Amino acid sequence: MVNRSWTKNRDAKAAKMDGIASLLDGKIVKTENAKELLERIIQPGDRVVLEGDNQKQASFLSETLASVDPEKVHDLHMIMSSVSRPEHLDIFETGIAKKLDFSFAGPQSTRISQMIADGTMEVGDIHTYLELYARLYVDLIPNVVLVAADKVDRDGNLYTGANTEETPAIVEAAAFKDGIVIVQANEIVDKVPRVDIPGDWVDVVVPADQPYQLEPLFTRDPQNVTELQILMGMMAIRGIYEKHNVQTVNHGVGFNTAAIELLLPTYGEQLGLKGKIVPNWEVNPTPTLIPAIESGWVKTIHSFGGEVGMENYIAHRPDIFFVGKDGTMRSNRAFGQMAGQYALDMFVGSTLQIDKFGNSSTVTNGRLSGFGGAPNMGSNPHGRRHSTPAWQSLRPDDDSLGKGQKLVVQMVETFGSNKKPVFVDHLDAEEVQKEAKLANVPIMIYSEDTTHIVTEEGIAYLYKTDSMAERQAAIEAIAGVTPVGLRSNPKQLADLRAKGIVALPEDLGVHRNEAKRSLLAAQNMDDLVKWSDGLYNPPAKFRSWS
Amino acid sequence: MVNRSWTKNRDAKAAKMDGIASLLDGKIVKTENAKELLERIIQPGDRVVLEGDNQKQASFLSETLASVDPEKVHDLHMIMSSVSRPEHLDIFETGIAKKLDFSFAGPQSTRISQMIADGTMEVGDIHTYLELYARLYVDLIPNVVLVAADKVDRDGNLYTGANTEETPAIVEAAAFKDGIVIVQANEIVDKVPRVDIPGDWVDVVVPADQPYQLEPLFTRDPQNVTELQILMGMMAIRGIYEKHNVQTVNHGVGFNTAAIELLLPTYGEQLGLKGKIVPNWEVNPTPTLIPAIESGWVKTIHSFGGEVGMENYIAHRPDIFFVGKDGTMRSNRAFGQMAGQYALDMFVGSTLQIDKFGNSSTVTNGRLSGFGGAPNMGSNPHGRRHSTPAWQSLRPDDDSLGKGQKLVVQMVETFGSNKKPVFVDHLDAEEVQKEAKLANVPIMIYSEDTTHIVTEEGIAYLYKTDSMAERQAAIEAIAGVTPVGLRSNPKQLADLRAKGIVALPEDLGVHRNEAKRSLLAAQNMDDLVKWSDGLYNPPAKFRSWS
Repeated sequence: MVNRSWTKNRDAKAAKMDGIASLLDGKIVKTENAKELLERIIQPGDRVVLEGDNQKQASFLSETLASVDPEKVHDLHMIMSSVSRPEHLDIFETGIAKKLDFSFAGPQSTRISQMIADGTMEVGDIHTYLELYARLYVDLIPNVVLVAADKVDRDGNLYTGANTEETPAIVEAAAFKDGIVIVQANEIVDKVPRVDIPGDWVDVVVPADQPYQLEPLFTRDPQNVTELQILMGMMAIRGIYEKHNVQTVNHGVGFNTAAIELLLPTYGEQLGLKGKIVPNWEVNPTPTLIPAIESGWVKTIHSFGGEVGMENYIAHRPDIFFVGKDGTMRSNRAFGQMAGQYALDMFVGSTLQIDKFGNSSTVTNGRLSGFGGAPNMGSNPHGRRHSTPAWQSLRPDDDSLGKGQKLVVQMVETFGSNKKPVFVDHLDAEEVQKEAKLANVPIMIYSEDTTHIVTEEGIAYLYKTDSMAERQAAIEAIAGVTPVGLRSNPKQLADLRAKGIVALPEDLGVHRNEAKRSLLAAQNMDDLVKWSDGLYNPPAKFRSWS
Repeated sequence: MVNRSWTKNRDAKAAKMDGIASLLDGKIVKTENAKELLERIIQPGDRVVLEGDNQKQASFLSETLASVDPEKVHDLHMIMSSVSRPEHLDIFETGIAKKLDFSFAGPQSTRISQMIADGTMEVGDIHTYLELYARLYVDLIPNVVLVAADKVDRDGNLYTGANTEETPAIVEAAAFKDGIVIVQANEIVDKVPRVDIPGDWVDVVVPADQPYQLEPLFTRDPQNVTELQILMGMMAIRGIYEKHNVQTVNHGVGFNTAAIELLLPTYGEQLGLKGKIVPNWEVNPTPTLIPAIESGWVKTIHSFGGEVGMENYIAHRPDIFFVGKDGTMRSNRAFGQMAGQYALDMFVGSTLQIDKFGNSSTVTNGRLSGFGGAPNMGSNPHGRRHSTPAWQSLRPDDDSLGKGQKLVVQMVETFGSNKKPVFVDHLDAEEVQKEAKLANVPIMIYSEDTTHIVTEEGIAYLYKTDSMAERQAAIEAIAGVTPVGLRSNPKQLADLRAKGIVALPEDLGVHRNEAKRSLLAAQNMDDLVKWSDGLYNPPAKFRSWS
């Protein structure tokens, strides 16, 4: 046994905190001293978590980090769930940062792809949200975390409200391992409306020059829902939601699922399904859910994050949403993803490409969009042991030791908005793997986990297939006139329909000519506002009617 | 749209809180009024979460609940991660409770099995920890939660310290959905050492008549480690840890893994593996890890819960453990399970039975022990997208779209301590399914997720098999003289060894005659105390040497 120190992290933190003592008034550092703060606190090579949720961005701290002197702060190992802002990547070009572990890079997917290929950036790995949070407690324990809060008091208590998102998961990893927690505050107050994160866990607070960036990412205007999407929605309701008796669900954020949300109070009502399906949701508070909520379809919604414009509506619907004593929502991305993975009957998403085997990806040529949360929810959790009717309905008949399976549904039109076929022989992701030198092909949802695919042609019940050949045939049968779909033939289709592996609209009792926009519970944003009794307040960019 | 209330939960809570106003001094209710408190707060049919972690039990509140008048409080739907104490089941006999959703029932596994068979209790389902927490946000949202804290201040701020365990996960579900959070406190203080849960989230605090029950469940005395377990440990270190370059790990809590922990500083050191394998752990702070920590094998440990006697040692090793500013550990069962599922290369556990296919279960005749956390960690998480060398080493060679797999290792002696064979044709769990009318056979870890089995005979590398027949043959080859093992023959064994599917000790360079107790870094509890420099303080029942 050598005589060693067991308090190196604590000593290093104490030294860093001493080094900024002159900047501190209690826990507060002045806005104009933020750059100096980061230059003194962050050491070269440090592991730094920068909060970049889906919606909320610690934008003041990310801009400040981009402004530090690379002579002083360099070679950082950045950990970001979402790479969303230009400076998130600028810091790799200036040498401030060197290595990146991340989950999602939607808005920056083209540039990140290039920077990896160029060697400007070393990628640790691409994760789902839960994996990235999990590693903060195991082998990516942070030295510094930079997060954003709405209101902060002088003890450092944080109010993060509707946009709590990932803040608790990343703060805890630093607060209890001698990391340093730095918070940008929209506002310093005497008393926070409620405590989302205890002040004990926070080291430094900086009032931001402006409120953190917040985007209404998940708002879908009903006027853009097409009649093909309505047809697919009708098929999904009959052929999946009703058939499998689905109670708990997550919806992706595309127009396909928005269509379903807007069909529940109309088409779903006609089918007599109200009170029978989907009472409990894990989903962001998307405005297209308002008609279903108002007409009594939805009992509860837990959310990963907030949605701009929904605040007042949510505050008036505490029986539905998770709302604190102060009257505003609490979100939690880590617990939401946990629920999305383990507590749901069904995940319904969309994608950009599906290969002939049924693997799907949103990674397309030159765009490395990452994984986000979809694979957590869009996979069969092998550790699940509780049973529900929907889950159990996918149990194989021929295995006495078998168990149920999560419903993982992909809804796509056979051709994308870019007129390119969605069904392809090979995913672009295979090329991207080579370009970006990734360990594996960046597949979002694997064929083995995909139980249903819905297109405008029909539904493929992939879980019923008993060989890869049959699975491929089922995919071909609903792939329309894409190269993959053209391989199908009438005999094959008839066989698959007879086996119940493929269903066309007529097999489900869905009439194509009923798939009209008039069937939607709301035609446009104004209708959503009316449904909400004026409580929903759409962001400016959605206010085209006014 | 009907004119309906959207604040029913909030109104109900307000009415309940009004109803106990006469009992409240701020948030505090006197110890002697606890029964009256529960009788007034809890409504018939309520969903009630009673904190029963592995180690920590809200024992004052559970005893109080068992004492209420069943005329006033009845037909409760109880949600308990661990059913551990007699009164956890008594309440079903008296009619106070009716339905149970749970995860683990170790100490009560025989009685719970009978009560289900008798119809005394209706079982919702049996879960893993993560599933149960997840459902608290979706379809098992609680009306009341009853939890335990070490110290509480007059604002309701909770200090839960080393035994934080599941408290945050269950409190949040109630606090933000107009549920009522009731806390039993070991002590009311003016100022808590640190805030683990904000007072904002807490409604009522009751000083308990005595400190909450806390058991040292995971302490294994080195003197009970056998030479067979040492042999298995040596094989595992060479044939799995070294071979697959394992960096991040969870160990189960049996003597098999204790043996490995005690071999790292000796046998592992001889092999030159120090600094090369298992720096990062998700595991409870088990005392048998002390020698590995002291000799520099372990870099970090995050824990689900605490372990009695380890408090002072942990306080002096903050570089290793997650420790707050107050100097004591913080545990977190929900985040720990998340890490155990998604961030680890390997799970190593033990079990009571393994069937001929490789399915394993701790459920044996008449004992329904539940699942706990093992299936979260002992399954291949299909949602995982990041790669590590160990994970990637299990990637199939023949699939260009393939990916890695988590190492899930079962370590068992071929015959159990009861002299019964561990390897069986049919699990007792199959009978238990019928008796308890469970939806599926209660399998702890499925064959499809099990990658390695280690016995005193050798290691079966199940992930390398390419058919169920080959998998069965590999299991037979290491199943010794159990009925399953007796089916193996020399030709089959030779083939499997040649293919690298089975390895015997000699194939791994492990000498049976070196498997001596003298190879353990500690022989007994006293040695662990010495290794800890006197900082580890074993509970009385382990102090046989003094």
